[in-house]
Amino acid sequence: MLTFWYAPGTCALATHLALEYAGAPYEAKRLDFRKGEQRSPEYLRINPKGRVPALVTERGVLTETTALLQYVAQVFPQAGLAPLDDPFALAKMNAFNGYLASTVHVNHAHKLRGYRWVDEGDEAALAAMMKKVPQTMADSFTLIEEQMFQGPWVLGERLSTSDFYLYTLAGWLEGDGVDVQRFPRVADHMRRAEALPAVQKVVAQHKA
Amino acid sequence: MLTFWYAPGTCALATHLALEYAGAPYEAKRLDFRKGEQRSPEYLRINPKGRVPALVTERGVLTETTALLQYVAQVFPQAGLAPLDDPFALAKMNAFNGYLASTVHVNHAHKLRGYRWVDEGDEAALAAMMKKVPQTMADSFTLIEEQMFQGPWVLGERLSTSDFYLYTLAGWLEGDGVDVQRFPRVADHMRRAEALPAVQKVVAQHKA
Repeated sequence: MLTFWYAPGTCALATHLALEYAGAPYEAKRLDFRKGEQRSPEYLRINPKGRVPALVTERGVLTETTALLQYVAQVFPQAGLAPLDDPFALAKMNAFNGYLASTVHVNHAHKLRGYRWVDEGDEAALAAMMKKVPQTMADSFTLIEEQMFQGPWVLGERLSTSDFYLYTLAGWLEGDGVDVQRFPRVADHMRRAEALPAVQKVVAQHKA
Repeated sequence: MLTFWYAPGTCALATHLALEYAGAPYEAKRLDFRKGEQRSPEYLRINPKGRVPALVTERGVLTETTALLQYVAQVFPQAGLAPLDDPFALAKMNAFNGYLASTVHVNHAHKLRGYRWVDEGDEAALAAMMKKVPQTMADSFTLIEEQMFQGPWVLGERLSTSDFYLYTLAGWLEGDGVDVQRFPRVADHMRRAEALPAVQKVVAQHKA
């Protein structure tokens, strides 16, 4: 049995969707970020980074969405969530996921978590960061829409972990001041993902 | 034959080291970022992100250090650069690499590339970002030193792709105003990595 730690509104949704879709045996445990539960001594013993997602396995704890997504695909191969027998195609999946992690998620984080990179009291700098988020998110999704997305799923005909990750971050656009309808293929992808029973179940759990 | 695009002083060093160590057949091509060559029409046709690294294979172009490192390990398995037969251990490697990509590299980028997240003319915000880099880099390397690094190599007894990536980013500490000697295990790791002929050869090429 796996234990999966998440918080609503975070990138942990992507791994949660992959676990659910793959039919993995797991228990989901929720943290309340507003109460600072991710910085409790108990949780820091599980994940010293004080972040989600974290997956507790019988061999230890795994973190980082990019690593977790491939791990779920490898441990539950019957779900077909990654092109495991093709290093080039697998690298394409991991490159897509890596771009979401190190560029798109980082762009978004400058809206509410700018204090990571400037002093907490510097309201002018925090506001300057927040102001540019609509532009950086739109720029990233333009690249995804025009250059990276193959369709109908991210990597083409086959659903993969990248679809759960893209769905998660595309869900942030509206709150970031970007109309997803500017990106028709991404918007279509969101509707396609929302039709999956695993997505409906987990999203309802996060919203509850 | 692979074609590998890099620029000196960038994270492309990590993949370059992995290619060299693995004995991969590749041609290295250098971009001059000061001349803006990463934004030339020719290069944008190779990598629309206008970044390095990019690896041109016979099947297409691959980007993102996290994806490239595992790809090199998979395509040249005799080099033993990743625990390919153990999904948990492989996820540990990818989680380490993911942390470097989405947290440590991002921290560093706020020194000279803060314009990605605030308007270019906002000198006060750019200065505020720059000011915090020594702290964010030191915090990240404290976590690496105390929680993530197994020793003598990142993942323990076996060299892996994570060693080339850590070596690359640890090399940024001095310029970021952080004394690597604060992190004795990381400092020892740097010396160990610098003793590898592949590292000496590629580093000399980047410095040339």
